[in-house]
Amino acid sequence: MSVTAAKGFTAAGIAAGIKENGNPDLALVVNTGPRRAAAGVFTSNRVKAAPVLWSEQVLKSGQVSAVVLNSGGANACTGPKGFQDTHATAEKAAEVLGRGAIEVAVCSTGLIGVLLPMDKLLPGVETAAAALSEHGGEKAAIAIKTTDTVHKTAVVTKDGWTVGGMAKGAGMLAPGLATMLVVLTTDAVVESEVLDKALRAATRTTFDRVDSDGCMSTNDTVLLLASGAADVTPEYEEFAEAVRAVCDDLGQQLIRDAEGASKDIKVEVVNAASEDDAVEVGRSIARNNLLKCAVHGEDPNWGRVLSAIGTTKAAFEPDRLNVAINGVWVCKNGGVGEDREKVDMRYREVHIVADLAAGSETATIWTNDLTADYVHENSAYSS
Amino acid sequence: MSVTAAKGFTAAGIAAGIKENGNPDLALVVNTGPRRAAAGVFTSNRVKAAPVLWSEQVLKSGQVSAVVLNSGGANACTGPKGFQDTHATAEKAAEVLGRGAIEVAVCSTGLIGVLLPMDKLLPGVETAAAALSEHGGEKAAIAIKTTDTVHKTAVVTKDGWTVGGMAKGAGMLAPGLATMLVVLTTDAVVESEVLDKALRAATRTTFDRVDSDGCMSTNDTVLLLASGAADVTPEYEEFAEAVRAVCDDLGQQLIRDAEGASKDIKVEVVNAASEDDAVEVGRSIARNNLLKCAVHGEDPNWGRVLSAIGTTKAAFEPDRLNVAINGVWVCKNGGVGEDREKVDMRYREVHIVADLAAGSETATIWTNDLTADYVHENSAYSS
Repeated sequence: MSVTAAKGFTAAGIAAGIKENGNPDLALVVNTGPRRAAAGVFTSNRVKAAPVLWSEQVLKSGQVSAVVLNSGGANACTGPKGFQDTHATAEKAAEVLGRGAIEVAVCSTGLIGVLLPMDKLLPGVETAAAALSEHGGEKAAIAIKTTDTVHKTAVVTKDGWTVGGMAKGAGMLAPGLATMLVVLTTDAVVESEVLDKALRAATRTTFDRVDSDGCMSTNDTVLLLASGAADVTPEYEEFAEAVRAVCDDLGQQLIRDAEGASKDIKVEVVNAASEDDAVEVGRSIARNNLLKCAVHGEDPNWGRVLSAIGTTKAAFEPDRLNVAINGVWVCKNGGVGEDREKVDMRYREVHIVADLAAGSETATIWTNDLTADYVHENSAYSS
Repeated sequence: MSVTAAKGFTAAGIAAGIKENGNPDLALVVNTGPRRAAAGVFTSNRVKAAPVLWSEQVLKSGQVSAVVLNSGGANACTGPKGFQDTHATAEKAAEVLGRGAIEVAVCSTGLIGVLLPMDKLLPGVETAAAALSEHGGEKAAIAIKTTDTVHKTAVVTKDGWTVGGMAKGAGMLAPGLATMLVVLTTDAVVESEVLDKALRAATRTTFDRVDSDGCMSTNDTVLLLASGAADVTPEYEEFAEAVRAVCDDLGQQLIRDAEGASKDIKVEVVNAASEDDAVEVGRSIARNNLLKCAVHGEDPNWGRVLSAIGTTKAAFEPDRLNVAINGVWVCKNGGVGEDREKVDMRYREVHIVADLAAGSETATIWTNDLTADYVHENSAYSS
């Protein structure tokens, strides 16, 4: 499963000693071909970690032979030495695998502002290469965990071809850490331009709409590698939908594992004048700390939803807004609606619908509640 | 003191029974003249409470004779009935005081989405009017408290004239509540246009730069009333500075009383290309939940500061950024700087300096840490 569900890929996950506790911390994913088309999307944070700067260069050719991923250190804000370390990591993998370094993407996750222990990482690349297997996807997914409580994989199999993948991330909110790394693989025959189009379309409506605490990482990376080993060229729409489905599945797993969270909140904005308006409003609601606390307390506080909508530039009239919480329209026409006592918030999933009454566009943002556990995890953690 | 420190004002604060616990909940501030110039600034939230919509109309004339303020209910998201209630409140005060209703501003704070108990509020206006006193400023300040642990007043006295005021607000983050109400008074002779200019200049660099949780209220109101009773017309610069000093003092009191907070955080952005850049960066840092948790844990996590800066559009180069926490430059040129062990974060005030190395402009945003107490207060509270 995971990144080795598709044919033409091997993977490994090992403990290189980067993490002091001895847990697995180094993963290697190799495209054994026959093709090696690839696409990637990266954090839009302008403070980018060294491996992001490197991998962006790698992806310019549209070709990736291998991906080295480490947990235990983000290699972010580490200056020229940090970039040299990423480069050396790619060189080592290239040497061991007999490929060109410019075809080796690198992803790192862990503490910001700390150099990686290269004396452990480089030998680890050799160990991982020796452990490569067509069944190594699960171990690779385990080796990239940081504060994740579970490893995350997803697979969609179509008629003769497959899209699979792995992700790490505890919501978008790992403390002191970079947050989200994803490697997707497929054995379909797809050119890099098409991979890029499908990947951007998929991430725009999945990972980009998972927002647990509004904090953007320096290391977020999503890669899609195509081996062509299935010798099938799918229709674009079918392929794009498979990629979207895998991204959506992994995105849901990220939210469900959000640090300290006790509720998963689905914020659905309907009847917006534009999709951009719907996303802006959804994000504003999803980032409202007071609402997130209220949901934690199982309080259907629709006033918080209206306050959040009011801070946006979206098209709406305040006295036409409607809000439903778990199916009860507690706010109608900007005022008191159905009896809030009818709202049942005992279960983990909470569904908020914000009706802007301004058009016909919609968007859904996933977030989670704000809890004392989140504060504890993120204040006790030493960077 | 408070709003009655300046000559030409009377005030009262009484318990009208709006709050179920019997605490003071109704304040009245009256300008006894001889002049009654006024200015106001209001929340930029597009979902505005009824008293904000009413008071914005009142301020268009530049004349205010009296302000009625109630705690125990925000009268926000209450539809046409809510607006009628605000209007009736102004009418009642006008009748009792012998003024025109259009000269009576109204401010409300408390729960959103609940109608005010007018059967208690209107008699309360009469009771408050009967209690008006030149020494009533303190009681008025007490009557507008919601989750505030202390009442907030400030006074600046110059050569023959005074600016004083009162504020309510527990940070910007009162749960289920509207947050910030401020009434300032002066006995200087100042026209409404000049009051408006001075007030906007003052709030832009004081209240607008106090940001405890990024959540914007539906009821924020800051009023400045001038009685002219001192018969002194100050120079504009001196007057504006006095107004700014009172606003700054009250703003600091708001942050120090922020719900659940254990640290006051001064985010100072220096060497920005523009003041707008400095404010954008300061706000991004101040709203970063992960940084706020780290500060709570006394962890000088400068990586969080860089991540927050990286999400802005401000002019900067990542490898030229510098960050100091409590005087220690823990980040230099975008990477590791001085030893983070040198940072002493035991005290309540934490000072973060972000050096963008892109110009010479500066701005300071005040915020506080994110704590489990904040979550408890805001999840246990029933809207």
